[in-house]
Amino acid sequence: MMTRTQVTAAQARAATILSAGSVVLTTNEQTQIEIADFGLGEFERTGLAIVVYVNTDRYCAKELVLTPQQTCPEHRHPPVGADRGKEETFRCRWGQVWLYVEGEPTAPMQARLPAGSEEAYTVFHQITLIPGAQYTIPPNTKHWFQAGPQGAIVSEFSSTSRDEYDVFTDQRIRRLPEVAGDAD
Amino acid sequence: MMTRTQVTAAQARAATILSAGSVVLTTNEQTQIEIADFGLGEFERTGLAIVVYVNTDRYCAKELVLTPQQTCPEHRHPPVGADRGKEETFRCRWGQVWLYVEGEPTAPMQARLPAGSEEAYTVFHQITLIPGAQYTIPPNTKHWFQAGPQGAIVSEFSSTSRDEYDVFTDQRIRRLPEVAGDAD
Repeated sequence: MMTRTQVTAAQARAATILSAGSVVLTTNEQTQIEIADFGLGEFERTGLAIVVYVNTDRYCAKELVLTPQQTCPEHRHPPVGADRGKEETFRCRWGQVWLYVEGEPTAPMQARLPAGSEEAYTVFHQITLIPGAQYTIPPNTKHWFQAGPQGAIVSEFSSTSRDEYDVFTDQRIRRLPEVAGDAD
Repeated sequence: MMTRTQVTAAQARAATILSAGSVVLTTNEQTQIEIADFGLGEFERTGLAIVVYVNTDRYCAKELVLTPQQTCPEHRHPPVGADRGKEETFRCRWGQVWLYVEGEPTAPMQARLPAGSEEAYTVFHQITLIPGAQYTIPPNTKHWFQAGPQGAIVSEFSSTSRDEYDVFTDQRIRRLPEVAGDAD
């Protein structure tokens, strides 16, 4: 669990990366950047920052911000009721990201698996995203991604986000953030 | 109808504005920028450039690029079959845009109505969008927008786009582009 101080520092770092990529946020948006550590307690290694621009019952748009070599862990978006599962398009805006999806494993792959969590990664077909490149991930298919040496900004365009239903390969993961008081 | 030479020049101008806003396109995307003059033959005054990143049966994302004082004319997105009409979120990335929607007219308003087309504008509730500001337009409601003195880049996040069903207030408008050979 991250402390409020740690969350605030992570938000500031994400804001700096967004600024490097000329992505403008309002002051209010900066204070509301979501810091996802997935409950693993190793945000620098496994986590990402998220700016949700809009999430209606029809579509969603976000910026995903990663620090250098930071990894968003493997997951899929399953069907939920009448929704056949979130479909999402990742478009790299700044930096570089290696996206891994189901398919023929790429060898050698560029990303390094997060130490201690190697077993939680099972798909290794590599898509390299540099600014201007994009890729659309079908519903209910496994994927994960890791930023390159500068970090990355990725615009995510998608159907409705229902993060609480995401299925992670790593059973230890808790998707929804828990923030501790600094005294905890 | 615009000639191929005029379209290419308009694409180059849009690419320059996108570059000023640090929005990176691939070379292929630059050649496919849609130049919409709405059949009015006055692109500098009434028109816009569009980069479609993705348009699936669930969601759509575009960049809209306007030159200084350029106007996207008043229209609405009606229901189409089971679709209750396109819902869209405009987020200003660079420059400035005045968006007009249904509601209490703003006086004085900042935009100037395109000369000769004044009767084709009927909604005047003004939303000023600067970088970081955004606004969501409900389905089937009239709206139009005009760029400020620098031009503008607006990210559009939406449900599926079906441009051919858009309903414009100006009956002269043809939404889908027609391009003439340079000899025409």
